[in-house]
Amino acid sequence: MEIEKVIHELVTETDSKIVMLVADGLGGMPLLPDGKTELESANMPNLQKIVPHCSVGLLEPISPGITPGSGPAHLGLFGYDPIQANIGRGVLSALGVNFDLRHGDLCARINFCTIDKSGKITDRRAGRIATDENKRICKKILDNIKLPQGVELFLVTEKEHRVALILRGRKFYEALADTDPQKEGLEPLLVTACDPQAGKETAGILNDIIAQVKNILADEQKANMVLLRGFAEFKKFTTMHDKFKLRCLALATYPMYRGLAKLIGMDVNWQITSAEEQMNELEKQWNNYDFFFIHIKGTDSSGEDGDFQRKVKVIESIDEIIPKILKLKPEVFIFTCDHSTPAKMKGHSWHKIPALILASNCRPDRVDRFDEYTCRKGCLNGLYSKDLMPLALAHSNKLMKFGA
Amino acid sequence: MEIEKVIHELVTETDSKIVMLVADGLGGMPLLPDGKTELESANMPNLQKIVPHCSVGLLEPISPGITPGSGPAHLGLFGYDPIQANIGRGVLSALGVNFDLRHGDLCARINFCTIDKSGKITDRRAGRIATDENKRICKKILDNIKLPQGVELFLVTEKEHRVALILRGRKFYEALADTDPQKEGLEPLLVTACDPQAGKETAGILNDIIAQVKNILADEQKANMVLLRGFAEFKKFTTMHDKFKLRCLALATYPMYRGLAKLIGMDVNWQITSAEEQMNELEKQWNNYDFFFIHIKGTDSSGEDGDFQRKVKVIESIDEIIPKILKLKPEVFIFTCDHSTPAKMKGHSWHKIPALILASNCRPDRVDRFDEYTCRKGCLNGLYSKDLMPLALAHSNKLMKFGA
Repeated sequence: MEIEKVIHELVTETDSKIVMLVADGLGGMPLLPDGKTELESANMPNLQKIVPHCSVGLLEPISPGITPGSGPAHLGLFGYDPIQANIGRGVLSALGVNFDLRHGDLCARINFCTIDKSGKITDRRAGRIATDENKRICKKILDNIKLPQGVELFLVTEKEHRVALILRGRKFYEALADTDPQKEGLEPLLVTACDPQAGKETAGILNDIIAQVKNILADEQKANMVLLRGFAEFKKFTTMHDKFKLRCLALATYPMYRGLAKLIGMDVNWQITSAEEQMNELEKQWNNYDFFFIHIKGTDSSGEDGDFQRKVKVIESIDEIIPKILKLKPEVFIFTCDHSTPAKMKGHSWHKIPALILASNCRPDRVDRFDEYTCRKGCLNGLYSKDLMPLALAHSNKLMKFGA
Repeated sequence: MEIEKVIHELVTETDSKIVMLVADGLGGMPLLPDGKTELESANMPNLQKIVPHCSVGLLEPISPGITPGSGPAHLGLFGYDPIQANIGRGVLSALGVNFDLRHGDLCARINFCTIDKSGKITDRRAGRIATDENKRICKKILDNIKLPQGVELFLVTEKEHRVALILRGRKFYEALADTDPQKEGLEPLLVTACDPQAGKETAGILNDIIAQVKNILADEQKANMVLLRGFAEFKKFTTMHDKFKLRCLALATYPMYRGLAKLIGMDVNWQITSAEEQMNELEKQWNNYDFFFIHIKGTDSSGEDGDFQRKVKVIESIDEIIPKILKLKPEVFIFTCDHSTPAKMKGHSWHKIPALILASNCRPDRVDRFDEYTCRKGCLNGLYSKDLMPLALAHSNKLMKFGA
């Protein structure tokens, strides 16, 4: 039997509460070999008080050497096998705008771009047009496009130059290459299928749509063409409730993380925009859920920008919300991240991630700080992200004994 | 999807260089419980300088408790699953003499031995006859033997009493038991098949060959009989280039490691005989390859001989070549071993192996020495040998992000 099935059979419902606080891209690196990491540099008096009572460790997000995208990295934290359960960017985009996907829908992310008269791309982001412009252009396309019998096209504005595309009504083929050549000065690529025979119809429909869009947008100054990437068919996921009998609430301020949470059956608050609102909502909804996912984006964005000091500040601001969470007395409090985003590298990385579990029955690791180095000494060290959920269930008395 | 496939899809070619320095059997053990290991006893001033900037760990070569042969231990280091990808000794022997194997060839290792008039073995190594003697006897056999229609036999001298045997021309059965009874005073065994029905033809051909050889060698003083072991069919391996898009060069002074490297598609220098020549060749070939495998044998041979002090000296001599490697500025430098060969045990062992990675974007583990004990504190601790290659690719910017 597989461990997933064992866990599913052992899970039992209780009143206990689990809070998972995810500081996106928290894991870091010293700028110089003998310097401190972002987490080591941050002043975290509240965290400091609880750390000696926690179990800690450096976790492997996916597999050694693999730099995770946000999708697989979060699925790991939620107890899914991130290699089996990977999701395409197109599906994430559609989920992020709260589009009501149906099984079999083909999704892609569109970026509006600017092309010159010869058809070559001059700006892959169409000057980051305003979101309202984006909405106007999407409507213009949908008002003018002609689709094959039975095919439906949806375009949902994300932000600036970004749009979620959804195609519905046929059995589509999803193994399609991006049309974004990744460089300016080149023409957009045609949609091509990995298996040209199997993907012929779907690629044909998409290439026809793109050709029409090009005509419809010919008189636009900036957004006069589209680049498509991340083609993926939407398939239903096993929910967190199916897997773990948990009623889950996601408190995230960014679309993609809300979409991810929705994909695995969490209830999602689509309104909140700040840590303060996240805390208010947490308190308000405390009795209605068993599992709370709180997502903080700033650690990742500052890391991506290479802004070490800003990342330190974001970490310090997270320290301020920790007492607000603990005041509610969750049986299990987890603080970790999806992946590392060292400011030094200005991007996601494969480095292991710091994690802690606070619970009345955790074996305290007696470390005096929470960072990439002290975590190496803890009992969670070397586990995988996907091991966190079973540990959360165990520490909250939601997992019965295995075997007699 | 499996992780191997994920990695294959994420690999991208770059100009960056990876050097993997393998000190065979480096991992050791104190002679007395409170003593030092070979690595702890060695004076390594050059390594000492870089260690604080490295990621380190004790790695599992195959699986806990498994003592690896050189084949699987190296395959693990090269990113192959050593349990799935094991190679028979016969194939390693043939590869070690640079024999041009074809798919389906049946290989075995022959040891010449001495038998008395009653047919009992008196010396399993035929007095370690000279290599030239070995060549003369191989020719004598091939000149006189009669083979079934369509079957070809090749005998290639290795060294002293050792010969690589290759049989070609039929669909052979490979699950055959060794004929070496492992003890003197016993007769050589017949070739027997695990599945007597399926293996009947192959076993019959081999037993007939052995009977003829016994007659042909009846007048020899020392090498008057053969013992066969390690039967294995040669099957093509996925190359390092197929797996990781790496152009690889092997700089090894011993036949078996060259053969192993050739098996997985590395280019092999068949001439070099010393560490100095290895370093000269490394410098000369620097621009022609992405991955360099440098193999040092002395750590293993001294360990096998139980010579603790000699092993320490060999380790200290390795310290001298490290600056020569680093002078070339590889993006990734790995120093590790295939398995432990503690002098105390006079043989390979199952104990975990020390490993380090030096790269500009490794998270430094801040340890002050490189040995079996300090490695336990590092972020690589507890990984498997087969995880090293994905990490080497990540640290050299050859692995793209997984998922959106």
